[in-house]
Amino acid sequence: MPEDLRNRVDRQPTIAGLSEADLLARIFPRLRMAESHTSSTLLGPGDDAAIVAAPDGRTVISIDTQVQDQDFRLQWPNGYRTTGFDVGWKAAAQNLSDINAMGARATSMVVSLTLPVDTPVKWVEDLADGLTAAIRGLGATQCSVAGGDLGRGSEISVTVAVLGTLDGGSPVLRSGARAGDTLALAGTAGHAAAGLALLESDVPVDNLGPAERVFVDLQSRPRPPLDAGPEARAAGATAMLDISDGLLRDGRRLAQASNVMVALDPGRLEQLAARLAPAADLLGADAGQWVLGGGEDHGLLATFPAGVQLPPGFTAIGSIHALGTDDGPGVLMAGRPADTGGWDHFAH
Amino acid sequence: MPEDLRNRVDRQPTIAGLSEADLLARIFPRLRMAESHTSSTLLGPGDDAAIVAAPDGRTVISIDTQVQDQDFRLQWPNGYRTTGFDVGWKAAAQNLSDINAMGARATSMVVSLTLPVDTPVKWVEDLADGLTAAIRGLGATQCSVAGGDLGRGSEISVTVAVLGTLDGGSPVLRSGARAGDTLALAGTAGHAAAGLALLESDVPVDNLGPAERVFVDLQSRPRPPLDAGPEARAAGATAMLDISDGLLRDGRRLAQASNVMVALDPGRLEQLAARLAPAADLLGADAGQWVLGGGEDHGLLATFPAGVQLPPGFTAIGSIHALGTDDGPGVLMAGRPADTGGWDHFAH
Repeated sequence: MPEDLRNRVDRQPTIAGLSEADLLARIFPRLRMAESHTSSTLLGPGDDAAIVAAPDGRTVISIDTQVQDQDFRLQWPNGYRTTGFDVGWKAAAQNLSDINAMGARATSMVVSLTLPVDTPVKWVEDLADGLTAAIRGLGATQCSVAGGDLGRGSEISVTVAVLGTLDGGSPVLRSGARAGDTLALAGTAGHAAAGLALLESDVPVDNLGPAERVFVDLQSRPRPPLDAGPEARAAGATAMLDISDGLLRDGRRLAQASNVMVALDPGRLEQLAARLAPAADLLGADAGQWVLGGGEDHGLLATFPAGVQLPPGFTAIGSIHALGTDDGPGVLMAGRPADTGGWDHFAH
Repeated sequence: MPEDLRNRVDRQPTIAGLSEADLLARIFPRLRMAESHTSSTLLGPGDDAAIVAAPDGRTVISIDTQVQDQDFRLQWPNGYRTTGFDVGWKAAAQNLSDINAMGARATSMVVSLTLPVDTPVKWVEDLADGLTAAIRGLGATQCSVAGGDLGRGSEISVTVAVLGTLDGGSPVLRSGARAGDTLALAGTAGHAAAGLALLESDVPVDNLGPAERVFVDLQSRPRPPLDAGPEARAAGATAMLDISDGLLRDGRRLAQASNVMVALDPGRLEQLAARLAPAADLLGADAGQWVLGGGEDHGLLATFPAGVQLPPGFTAIGSIHALGTDDGPGVLMAGRPADTGGWDHFAH
């Protein structure tokens, strides 16, 4: 564990003295959903495996891992300290977003935690609270934590596998965009990147006003628009994906999977960038780069046939064009190829 | 990465220069099953999530993580070097075993890999080969790798979430054992523990004969009996679990979940211990302790109503008794409480 967390939690009980059963007994009560909750979990934690309803005979599944010092820092340059609650929230939100991006609803998740032996028990309890709060707060009303695994390691690592249902519908893939389609965005773009820039700045977190603080909060606890995915599917979306690595990079993925050109509307992007002014002004940064390159907002990028009324929460930000004779699929801005950007776990 | 692996792989290309897409392009071809394979995967890798068939409207799910230096060592005291193939095989086998222990068949898995930047590409390719080989070699004929996630960390960590189907049947839980039931074992007990003792010994691995080497192989690449779980369910098993932490510890879990006494037959245990003689004689060790306390064979411990013909692969090793007036649930040997043993990730 890094020195800063160790100092902060001195004298707090750690997991060192607890058996796996002891620690699970501290976690499970925090994963229970409200009694009114309509869970898809048919058999929850405590046996060799869990059982989850798959009412239409199919299960949508995704998996994602967050690792300390890679996907989050416990202590940021601006003084912000990432809580267990933040890590739990973000792990749940990122995975729920992948189900959303298929046009599906989450039904359950299983969680595998790797923890250094000197991790405070309180930190792990907070993580469980964050998982539960994200599931509830983001509106995944049928989802609960069906099971998990605990083990030791030298760094904190949280893996979530999430299940979902398409309710009998067809999944919205990345490959269905057609020339003439409208390109639309649900959720925010660049807010999490603005938050990251603030966290990495030398502006003390306690000096931030509410207009700037919102970006830090969205970086720490992203809010994917979970209604938008199933609504896009119902409205006839032809292609969709989760913007986890930035509008340019994820736009390029959609272009490549569909073999089309994705044309972004610079005027619309300027409107998105204008919302980031409080952070951009404070840091002297280019908000446009955050909009184009910033991941982790976990908004949705979707295409709809021209003339379709966009579902609530979606805004048109461009259009889909056929490939020219000499062009490969890619992203255009004002008719010119846009540079790629965004985040790649390995290339950066 | 530990020095030993770094030395071994000097001059081998590492993942440092590869993007996530590059590395995935090296892995995916190795995860493809034979063409004759009947896969339950409806949508495989490449989109935000995968889609897997759940023909009876339910999905069985489990998750498990293996971390370097916790669940495996890259280099053992006896000179054995854990390969990527071993780690991939073991990750698949452990998770397939959890599905087996419910009486279910595996339909798919998703895999999240955390890798240090200096991990050799070849090691990762071997891991993919090991996953595929375990799925095929253990007979999970409908299962394939449906998707995954790649990220960086300071230590190797492999998380698998596995899905399964009960084919319309009822799951075999830990809680269904009743007084009078026969206690039965499928698979081996203590072989993986004998292998662990050999790996941790100063007897060079190259000096081991085939009779001892089999234990090292089972520790490195466990062979859970995947037919036995569904067959036990079909035969009317009342309770079942995967022996991952040893016969005593897992027997106690079954006893507690079912609120009964688990009585082990010392004569049967001696027969199991006799099979471990080549390793026990070499090391001067107590084979009985391996049988009682050794995990990671991933055999099945199941209970059947008295008089039921045990399915192929199961051997009777004891019986289930009602609780006495003053007793809590537990494990008996020759009428006396057996000491607990086995492996706990946190308490040891």
